[in-house]
Amino acid sequence: MSLVLDPATQALLFSDARTANTFTDEPVTEEQVQAIYDLVKYGPTAFNQTPLRVVLVRSAEARERLLPHMAEGNRAKTGAAPLVAILAADNEFHEELPRLVPQAPHLKDVFFGERSTRERSAAMNASLQAGYFIVGVRAAGLAAGPMTGFDFAGVQKEFLDDDHTPLMIVNIGKPGEDAWSPARNPRLPFDDVVTTV
Amino acid sequence: MSLVLDPATQALLFSDARTANTFTDEPVTEEQVQAIYDLVKYGPTAFNQTPLRVVLVRSAEARERLLPHMAEGNRAKTGAAPLVAILAADNEFHEELPRLVPQAPHLKDVFFGERSTRERSAAMNASLQAGYFIVGVRAAGLAAGPMTGFDFAGVQKEFLDDDHTPLMIVNIGKPGEDAWSPARNPRLPFDDVVTTV
Repeated sequence: MSLVLDPATQALLFSDARTANTFTDEPVTEEQVQAIYDLVKYGPTAFNQTPLRVVLVRSAEARERLLPHMAEGNRAKTGAAPLVAILAADNEFHEELPRLVPQAPHLKDVFFGERSTRERSAAMNASLQAGYFIVGVRAAGLAAGPMTGFDFAGVQKEFLDDDHTPLMIVNIGKPGEDAWSPARNPRLPFDDVVTTV
Repeated sequence: MSLVLDPATQALLFSDARTANTFTDEPVTEEQVQAIYDLVKYGPTAFNQTPLRVVLVRSAEARERLLPHMAEGNRAKTGAAPLVAILAADNEFHEELPRLVPQAPHLKDVFFGERSTRERSAAMNASLQAGYFIVGVRAAGLAAGPMTGFDFAGVQKEFLDDDHTPLMIVNIGKPGEDAWSPARNPRLPFDDVVTTV
């Protein structure tokens, strides 16, 4: 009773949601991806920098270019998923700050003039947004299959550029047969994660 | 209509939720924090590593130790928030992997034997979990005020240790008067964030 969120939605977003390894053939539409973005774009980031960028791998040709970069254990499911999204951090996000924080035009140069500062900030805030994105995929009634098992340099070279660092690749779709193992991996007990001072 | 999530819950978690700068005096209970953790602990991480750790700053003494490390603009609100949480990444998360992924006892040493690898992985995955945590705070009907404006080295020394890297500090409570400015900062349009190949 400590949550406002109803139990069905708790299940949809977190407690019953699982990382899917198989999917049905049902396509993921452009409208669904737009709705996911229009929901999760509101998630907070430092100075509203919102550095997450997404590459949707839709064409068969692009999928073929992606698969050799996936770890062997991720290749078949990435080949079969209805939609594959490459999530990346934009290390030049500061160029967008004047329109993201119009009341503070100095932010761009004062806080983010150094590339190394931007890379650290973009990695942290884009990862935070990746968390929102996965919740958003589930909010659309879809399953996400996030993966870090791939050749990061290879994916960056093939699909991104020097200013965009890949974070993870996410398979998206309706879960298929035996989409996950019945036993869920355990989580740490509260007292091993949260301490009070 | 592309989302399964109902509009009221979309508003609760994302579209109406704002970063709060003032709070009421209503306390945030231990039961609420436990409920938030028990919800968001299920969010996926790479190899179920779940490296996020949380320090709840509850005592007046601890709050006094924290405030000098906050950026001046964050000090008053951090002093007044009902609860303050320090979110950190555990760079020695691999020690927990045998109980988190019991079927793959080799993970700990094969993938995460190197400290630098662990630090990168912990930063990314704990940031991902910070995204889930902020959503969880909102799922409890509370407002979050995440901040990166503080002395990271100072907070690490005062509240953590060499194995735990601070990520952000989050004020938590019911939003108070004028908790945020009426105008919300803009977000990037879909086509500037999402590309299709």
